[in-house]
Amino acid sequence: MTWMISNPELTQQELLNAESLFALGNGYIGVRGNFEEGYGDAMSTIRGTYLNAFHDVIEIPYGEKLFAFPDTQQKLVNNIDAQTIMIYLGDEQVPFRLDQGTITAYERRLHMDKGFSERVVQWKSPGGKEVRFVFRRLVSFRHRELFAIHVRIEPVNYNGPVTIVSTLNGKVKNYTNPKDPRVGAGHAERMTVVDTGVKDSYGWVVDETMSSRLRASCVTSHRLDTEADVRLDASPEQGLITYTAAFTLTEAVSLTKYNVYTDSMRHGDHITDTGAELQEGLAGLSFDDLVAEQTKYLNDYWKSADVIIRNDDKLQEGIRFNLFQLLQSAGRDKHSNIAAKGLSGEGYEGHYFWDTEIYMFPVFLMTQPDIARQLLLYRYSTLEQARDRAREMGHKKGALFPWRTIAGTECSSFFPSGTAQYHISADIAYSYIQYYLAEQDQDFLLKYGAEVLIETARLWAEIGHYYGGAFHIDEVTGPDEYTCCVNNNYYTNVMAKHNLKWAAKSVSILKAFNEAAAAELLQRLGVTEEEVSAWEKAAAAMLLPYDETLGINPQDDTFLRKAVWDFENTPKENYPLLLHYHPLTIYRYQVCKQADTVLAHFLLEDEQDLETIRRSYDYYEGITTHDSSLSSCIFSIMASKIGNMDKAYDYFIETARLDLDNTHGNTKDGLHMANMGGTWMSIVYGFAGMRLKESGLSLSPAIPKDWEQYAFRLTFRGRLINVRIKNDGVMLELVEGDAIEVKLYEETVVLEAGKPIERQLAAALSGK
Amino acid sequence: MTWMISNPELTQQELLNAESLFALGNGYIGVRGNFEEGYGDAMSTIRGTYLNAFHDVIEIPYGEKLFAFPDTQQKLVNNIDAQTIMIYLGDEQVPFRLDQGTITAYERRLHMDKGFSERVVQWKSPGGKEVRFVFRRLVSFRHRELFAIHVRIEPVNYNGPVTIVSTLNGKVKNYTNPKDPRVGAGHAERMTVVDTGVKDSYGWVVDETMSSRLRASCVTSHRLDTEADVRLDASPEQGLITYTAAFTLTEAVSLTKYNVYTDSMRHGDHITDTGAELQEGLAGLSFDDLVAEQTKYLNDYWKSADVIIRNDDKLQEGIRFNLFQLLQSAGRDKHSNIAAKGLSGEGYEGHYFWDTEIYMFPVFLMTQPDIARQLLLYRYSTLEQARDRAREMGHKKGALFPWRTIAGTECSSFFPSGTAQYHISADIAYSYIQYYLAEQDQDFLLKYGAEVLIETARLWAEIGHYYGGAFHIDEVTGPDEYTCCVNNNYYTNVMAKHNLKWAAKSVSILKAFNEAAAAELLQRLGVTEEEVSAWEKAAAAMLLPYDETLGINPQDDTFLRKAVWDFENTPKENYPLLLHYHPLTIYRYQVCKQADTVLAHFLLEDEQDLETIRRSYDYYEGITTHDSSLSSCIFSIMASKIGNMDKAYDYFIETARLDLDNTHGNTKDGLHMANMGGTWMSIVYGFAGMRLKESGLSLSPAIPKDWEQYAFRLTFRGRLINVRIKNDGVMLELVEGDAIEVKLYEETVVLEAGKPIERQLAAALSGK
Repeated sequence: MTWMISNPELTQQELLNAESLFALGNGYIGVRGNFEEGYGDAMSTIRGTYLNAFHDVIEIPYGEKLFAFPDTQQKLVNNIDAQTIMIYLGDEQVPFRLDQGTITAYERRLHMDKGFSERVVQWKSPGGKEVRFVFRRLVSFRHRELFAIHVRIEPVNYNGPVTIVSTLNGKVKNYTNPKDPRVGAGHAERMTVVDTGVKDSYGWVVDETMSSRLRASCVTSHRLDTEADVRLDASPEQGLITYTAAFTLTEAVSLTKYNVYTDSMRHGDHITDTGAELQEGLAGLSFDDLVAEQTKYLNDYWKSADVIIRNDDKLQEGIRFNLFQLLQSAGRDKHSNIAAKGLSGEGYEGHYFWDTEIYMFPVFLMTQPDIARQLLLYRYSTLEQARDRAREMGHKKGALFPWRTIAGTECSSFFPSGTAQYHISADIAYSYIQYYLAEQDQDFLLKYGAEVLIETARLWAEIGHYYGGAFHIDEVTGPDEYTCCVNNNYYTNVMAKHNLKWAAKSVSILKAFNEAAAAELLQRLGVTEEEVSAWEKAAAAMLLPYDETLGINPQDDTFLRKAVWDFENTPKENYPLLLHYHPLTIYRYQVCKQADTVLAHFLLEDEQDLETIRRSYDYYEGITTHDSSLSSCIFSIMASKIGNMDKAYDYFIETARLDLDNTHGNTKDGLHMANMGGTWMSIVYGFAGMRLKESGLSLSPAIPKDWEQYAFRLTFRGRLINVRIKNDGVMLELVEGDAIEVKLYEETVVLEAGKPIERQLAAALSGK
Repeated sequence: MTWMISNPELTQQELLNAESLFALGNGYIGVRGNFEEGYGDAMSTIRGTYLNAFHDVIEIPYGEKLFAFPDTQQKLVNNIDAQTIMIYLGDEQVPFRLDQGTITAYERRLHMDKGFSERVVQWKSPGGKEVRFVFRRLVSFRHRELFAIHVRIEPVNYNGPVTIVSTLNGKVKNYTNPKDPRVGAGHAERMTVVDTGVKDSYGWVVDETMSSRLRASCVTSHRLDTEADVRLDASPEQGLITYTAAFTLTEAVSLTKYNVYTDSMRHGDHITDTGAELQEGLAGLSFDDLVAEQTKYLNDYWKSADVIIRNDDKLQEGIRFNLFQLLQSAGRDKHSNIAAKGLSGEGYEGHYFWDTEIYMFPVFLMTQPDIARQLLLYRYSTLEQARDRAREMGHKKGALFPWRTIAGTECSSFFPSGTAQYHISADIAYSYIQYYLAEQDQDFLLKYGAEVLIETARLWAEIGHYYGGAFHIDEVTGPDEYTCCVNNNYYTNVMAKHNLKWAAKSVSILKAFNEAAAAELLQRLGVTEEEVSAWEKAAAAMLLPYDETLGINPQDDTFLRKAVWDFENTPKENYPLLLHYHPLTIYRYQVCKQADTVLAHFLLEDEQDLETIRRSYDYYEGITTHDSSLSSCIFSIMASKIGNMDKAYDYFIETARLDLDNTHGNTKDGLHMANMGGTWMSIVYGFAGMRLKESGLSLSPAIPKDWEQYAFRLTFRGRLINVRIKNDGVMLELVEGDAIEVKLYEETVVLEAGKPIERQLAAALSGK
């Protein structure tokens, strides 16, 4: 049961959300859970197929355009549609469709252990012909380019002629909503059909983006398990390939549709040929074979990633769903990363944000380090553009990563909550540092990490300055987008401090690791000893604002002098505030969209004592709206940290099923990927108190009072570790790899094969 | 000589600037100084005719549109073109044009005493035919709707056939420059021709704006003083009226072209009929008659407005030019105000800013109080929109005037240096207060002024809050657009304080003036005694930031903690900074585009002691780029105030001939109207130390060391006062009106007819 998301409802509202929830992907292809047969005009749909990072370039319009405002942005395009399959029964005027005839049974399922989705519909046509359809689809983890659909038609009371019309459609548009800043406002049509064709049993469509001139191809083949009259036609004007099969239904008949996507970013010039070759490779594989491969892949995944919550099916379902979607969304090559909505929708135009590094990277780092590494390599591949952007922004040295991007250039047109979020450069640095702490991969540090740390440290050295002996960073925006363009944002400063310190530290590490290679790197980058000292000095002198009266870290220099938002007189329907108040009005008050200082206290907890962290938590909790889906998980983690397990649990509940229950009301635009990572973090960093520091891996587990037991696994320096927490104790077990030391509470324990460690739960942390 | 601007140069660069310098207007019509015959393709031109406030509504594009960002803005449209007159000599292939044939003599003049411009060209055609042309044109101050052109053709070596082709062209476009944020970036074509026609000797074109559906008509008639073969044709498809006259040139021949503009905002539904009627009224008036009328009007103007600077023709020319252009630009009805570029160009899309109240209104207040009153009435007519905007911005009460507008709604799409400049509401309040101080018109206060003061005071009460006993105003931008969205901007706070104080004071004044009427007003606005007390309390508690260490008023709460801009390493070509650095980079430093705190010290000098003002002046002078044309004049005034006459004079020099010498490089886009007002203010408020306070009118004159004598006139409470300052003394003289007290230095003197007052110059103020 808890390996499956089931959806027996069929309402317009549910339909759009379910399209996101039932989206399938493999980090390259993403297909929304649209119905093969469509919906009819009465119901709206966001029909979408996406290739990660496959984008067009569009102009950004401005009423007043100032210097270094980006001219263009990238936009993930809706790609060639291979989803459509229409089925006609005998002489019925209309094909099978849910707004026609009568639905006698309906259910949709997502099999997270087997990696496919399934839709079972029993349907009586307007003319009384009843049949049962089983649609199954998967996007293969083994065959990156493959999206397959399997339809089984079973007679109920009808035996007679059936016609299946399956298409491949190159005339596609993006979804737009001019009223919501979180969705693209224009530029619906971004692709033109440049080729359609049919050869042997294949049909193909090639589309090209209008401005970036990227090409995508889809090569399709069909296999029907009965005798039929089959035709395959290309209509170049309509950009359409049509497969038609007419046969007589007497017993169950199945059609498998194999859609192979290739694109000019990854597959070179001959994308259709490549697609056809890949089709050849699939010749021997039935849909059941594909499911078997998929199941094997997922077995491996769940072995390292599964989280088990005993006796709470809703939460069990939630956490697995999130982990499944993360796996589906993460890019596996240097072109791609994880979009804010994964590959499940068009919200935020397919852009990559800091969400990856702070909310999703940790999950992969501790469960799938190879994917984590790929995510770092993507950022490394954009370092040159980040350097260029820093120059454009007037900085002589360093790299400024874009707030939102696909191809590496800044795509944010509203800088106060865009480019001003300089912290993304420190966030990226933080993820490289975490990777080093987890893997201690000095070679990776030498080849990639140190350069990123050095260039981002330079950014801080460039924009910061000394005032009264302290190092200040002015005019930036922290994570909280309800307070923009401030001086000495605590989050930014403490992250920059960490960045500067580690840039210097990475130089020492590399010198010890490989002196010649280190020297070569430093020479190539022009790093001098004076510069390294300057980073250390700035890190040591970094201003970390502290308010004596409240005993908390103020969010920035002036935050605490502002009036507190009038929450009492703000009606519920006025949330999220950003959709109901002008930014200036929001900026004027102490009100946070999301965790900011509280997040800093999580990421760098040793910078403040626990009492300051606790008081800050209480203070910010009172003024945070959690209008961002990136907030509740951090509040959950930090509630665990300060020992308030009830609160930790409440926030966890909000975060765990955000999309399944559509609590933010915009799941239709795609899944909230960062929140999905945050759910895992709420358990592992929150309840179980996992941390990764220079001292190594540590755990400090507690358990919510309603839970009996929960368990998860960690991959750490080649070991697989099982962690199980019951309400009366904690057990650590080495599942794979050599013996290793970890810290449990304050104790250093050695994990060895076959020797599980068991301890009592620490009393101080087991609730309030 | 100093009543005339002369321009004997003829280069491409000069041409575009000269189009602005030789623009003519009367507050309703504005016509750029384009050549009647055009320029040929090799030379570029901004050919423009404008009707004040006549605008289209255009959509504002956004990459990311947040709540309450304005959807649309207004844009002054380039109107029906009546400037064109082509002249063909005999069988020459090309008409008279300056890029053809040979120019044997050329001069252009602007007669500021007579109110017309003149262009004399002696020209030899490619075929050797030499003639002399004298073009004269005026926009009538007496006949609001009239723009007249007079052409005189004099034979030099040519006697023979001449054909004149004069047109009225409805197909017009606006100028665009996507690279300069100070000019409109798109929307070039905003008008469609809806009617063209010919009747008797009139031809007309009616244009309609595409979106706002405003209509403008131009009815044209021609009078030629010789026998000719005349035709008048309408070409509806081309939106063109063509007047053709063929005759034989034997002696000088003159053509007068009368263009009458009407529009649907002012002239109702039958704008062409109204135009034709107005043409009837002009039947008896020759061009010389029009010049005579114009001269009489200007005699009156100069009688009250002229400033005389003895022995410095360049400056004399500069100040008169500025005063002449101010008169040409000021709207005289409730629809219109003074655009940032007057009616001389399309910079800032014809929008009205705070420039009017702070830089131009004072000139009219003290020389043409009727025009000053009209400018106030324009703002009053937009009060309802300002109330709506305040609601939209989340304020329960009060009025927020738009940062830039034509029709009263916010047209700023970039709020950090747009809507965030809340100070405009206090600036407008300040102008109402100044008007009251000058005229003591309690009736006007009752009908208009008090309501504006009350609604703007409410805005401050709404957005301010108490912190540590002081009244704070957060998240606003002061006049300095190089520092945006700050807390407790000194300028804003001190202006808001004044606004709040005077809202309360106006209630007392009105109660004393007319208790019943006052009570009715307060009831209509829902003003309670508690509310009035709250204004007084907030004004008294207003935080005026002061830095103990430097002994200056910081521009805002955090300004002095920022790093100072690296002026030393900023190359000259990187100014103005806004065209070379991202706003975030600029905001990060102590660097001012213009006077901010220094301006506050001018407008409300009694809020600080002279030493604080002096130290602040020195401090801000060191970090101000004067990238805004609104800056130098204020630095000049305040240099006078602190007794540094050399500096006052240097800044004055920069300001006095800014457009005549094109020192900001963008005179082509229109004249810098605020700077023009600032020139007058530099003399009257600066050198002569004029102030208008509750205690009345005061003067504290000094004289720059290079000057021998300067003089100006003030209109004050119905009196006309002559002020003359020589390097050895000052003389005040009542020219018109009853005896009145004024303050000269610290002495109260009574001015009576025929009894000039003479005093020595105060030594302390006569230079450093």
